[in-house]
Amino acid sequence: MNVIRDRIGTRNLLAGDRLPSIRGFARQMKVSNSTVVEAYDRLVAEGVIQARRGSGFYVAPHTAPLSIARIGPKLDRAIDPFWVSRQSLDARPDMLKPGCGWLPADWMPETAIRRALRKLSRADDATLVDYGTPLGLASLRHFLSRRMAGYGIDAHPDHLLLTESGTQAIDMLCRFLIAPGDTVLVDDPCYFNFQALLRAHRANIVGVPFTENGPDVGAFARIAVTTKPRLYITNSGLHNPTGASLSPMVAHQVLNIAEQHDLIIIEDDIFADFENTPAPRLVALGGLERVIHIGSFSKTLSASVRCGYIAASADWIDGLTDLKIATGFSGPNLSAELIFAVLKDGTYRKYMETLRDRLARTMTITETRLRNLGITPAINPDAGLFLWCRLPDHMDAATLARNALSDGVVLAPGNVFSISQTAGNLMRFNVAQCQDERIFRVIERALEK
Amino acid sequence: MNVIRDRIGTRNLLAGDRLPSIRGFARQMKVSNSTVVEAYDRLVAEGVIQARRGSGFYVAPHTAPLSIARIGPKLDRAIDPFWVSRQSLDARPDMLKPGCGWLPADWMPETAIRRALRKLSRADDATLVDYGTPLGLASLRHFLSRRMAGYGIDAHPDHLLLTESGTQAIDMLCRFLIAPGDTVLVDDPCYFNFQALLRAHRANIVGVPFTENGPDVGAFARIAVTTKPRLYITNSGLHNPTGASLSPMVAHQVLNIAEQHDLIIIEDDIFADFENTPAPRLVALGGLERVIHIGSFSKTLSASVRCGYIAASADWIDGLTDLKIATGFSGPNLSAELIFAVLKDGTYRKYMETLRDRLARTMTITETRLRNLGITPAINPDAGLFLWCRLPDHMDAATLARNALSDGVVLAPGNVFSISQTAGNLMRFNVAQCQDERIFRVIERALEK
Repeated sequence: MNVIRDRIGTRNLLAGDRLPSIRGFARQMKVSNSTVVEAYDRLVAEGVIQARRGSGFYVAPHTAPLSIARIGPKLDRAIDPFWVSRQSLDARPDMLKPGCGWLPADWMPETAIRRALRKLSRADDATLVDYGTPLGLASLRHFLSRRMAGYGIDAHPDHLLLTESGTQAIDMLCRFLIAPGDTVLVDDPCYFNFQALLRAHRANIVGVPFTENGPDVGAFARIAVTTKPRLYITNSGLHNPTGASLSPMVAHQVLNIAEQHDLIIIEDDIFADFENTPAPRLVALGGLERVIHIGSFSKTLSASVRCGYIAASADWIDGLTDLKIATGFSGPNLSAELIFAVLKDGTYRKYMETLRDRLARTMTITETRLRNLGITPAINPDAGLFLWCRLPDHMDAATLARNALSDGVVLAPGNVFSISQTAGNLMRFNVAQCQDERIFRVIERALEK
Repeated sequence: MNVIRDRIGTRNLLAGDRLPSIRGFARQMKVSNSTVVEAYDRLVAEGVIQARRGSGFYVAPHTAPLSIARIGPKLDRAIDPFWVSRQSLDARPDMLKPGCGWLPADWMPETAIRRALRKLSRADDATLVDYGTPLGLASLRHFLSRRMAGYGIDAHPDHLLLTESGTQAIDMLCRFLIAPGDTVLVDDPCYFNFQALLRAHRANIVGVPFTENGPDVGAFARIAVTTKPRLYITNSGLHNPTGASLSPMVAHQVLNIAEQHDLIIIEDDIFADFENTPAPRLVALGGLERVIHIGSFSKTLSASVRCGYIAASADWIDGLTDLKIATGFSGPNLSAELIFAVLKDGTYRKYMETLRDRLARTMTITETRLRNLGITPAINPDAGLFLWCRLPDHMDAATLARNALSDGVVLAPGNVFSISQTAGNLMRFNVAQCQDERIFRVIERALEK
């Protein structure tokens, strides 16, 4: 392989040239014919050479050189709802990411995932190569149905639809439920990607002020009257970015307002496994006719294995299934098998317990470090990854984030989460990504600028 | 585990009851404590019991019984563009599916997939658990860029975006390029899911009569003038359902019409690997400014591992990347790693050669068997899976499909592919799924009804 690559590199072989015959080259290199066949096959697989049937092997046409794709921070990018996503997802491996929304790779249950992959390598052919059924892997849907029952949620496996991700679940629901111009309520602040997603649907996005117990019920009621919303999207357990949990009373009142105005609620429950004590779920109180429940496994199991789910009423699931076939044909079949194998692995529950303890300790340490810099939590979360903090002296979070980015630290400035742009002095910190001392030095320096 | 399950089944333990302590139950069962811990953990994972921190284990609330989800044919379903998808995807394992669009599981490269899974089980943590970059796995994009160069297509790896599937690629492009009411041209007949997808986008779908060399150029030109279309979606190599290949002259003329009317073409190339001699690609002639090229690996590698791609101009890729983040956050990271591992495995090329030979032999045999029943190909395909056939004596294909379905055979009647509903006497056969003699007996019986 190296000899052929060298000949191409030194232009002794040009694009379109025929390679030496297998037998001839084997003799020349003093190796067996099968060694040359394997080397040529690998070069074909790499796209360096091409096989023409019955005629031999030829140097492939030139193509773009293997370069490092454009990665790393773009400092000139506007601080909009895409800012954190793109800076975090595009970050170079050496960058620090206290602003990102996920755990460090070495905090995830990689041993169970490796075990599940080895197990899958022995699965039957159909599992490995066939399309999944329209609703998605039955055993995983049964498992999720039972797990939801533990939260007081009554969702039959047939009322669960597997999707490519939690985000795709919300996206499908928006396609199914809203038309351009429809009003959709979100929390202010809320997960920034809700805004990006709703913009893609050309929705009229209205923010409801968020408190430490959930949305401000008085404001919610007034906004429902004036804007006639079709949907409300929220997190019940461990709200992103604040870490707050919904109180039972707020849950009850929000559902009453929803009933009154025929408003559908999408409850995004992706942080459920981080809770020590489960917060009330809107769907447990309001049922699947009023509340659609979605989730995924990206935060606690793997973000590389894509799989999410929707729990909704029977009528909607049937329509959503047609939409899923039309827009994606089939679902995350092998990923669902992998997720299910990890979830039913006896070690997952213990992993989550250890993870919650580790996060609690890390949160205490991070809070102390931030307080030393004059950065204080605006809300005290029960659990989870996030600390939603106020910066000292009316410091502008976007300016701080830009300064930190030029020092290789990705932060999450408050206004990317705020539809009213009233969180300019706030910042979301992911405590699990705050282990490196350098982060605090960079922030300290940036604060002094 | 069985003892606890029995006690719950016989109502000796009710929902909410506390389970025996680990130590007590271990003594009772004469096993070690760790055996009980493992059994309880597995029951927790199965959702049968729940762990409450510091308090022990409890029987989980009741939930839906583990039933076989509603599967199998729905005979009363309308024969619409979803008919074949749902009947094929929902088919019971014992059903025969000459109407489906994929290979039997045991024709797929399962050995290479198993090897790739074992390899992935030893990958680094980040590969297994982190979100992918916005464009998707760089090594796979470089590989695809080189492979496309072999078809004369000039697509830089940075102009390639990985998606969840080929269907999702087209879906994203429709969201990006068309508004409700825009006219989109498709071939008549065309892959039925194009219609389902375009209906989800509320597009005005217009069919262009399809010939054995591609679309009817005269009709195409007239329709372009009268309907001012925004998009044309087609397969260049081995068209679905006809198996026809685009001729160079038709390709050239279609591009000229597209230029003249500022029409964008989406070229869906998922059957590329089945070709013996590549047909001309519209994107090779027209470039990425005019033609967007998409593909996936569902047909030749695995439909269970979801991964597709889009090749488009730099401007569009940037906008599509934001759309991908907003609607799915990240892409098929682990699936892309798996696909790449199989593609670069030296055995894939040989597998495809063997597969093409096998398909060619099977096509000859199937054609003979169908001719014996008076069913004759309307087009002679160069390669691929499909035979697009005319039924004897103006027999109605939908009636035949319904009759065959009640005998456990899923067929693909012509009109599900035809926007003008002019293919009532035609039927698509997947030769790879026609190996079982019973299929021909069922068709023979159904023809006689």
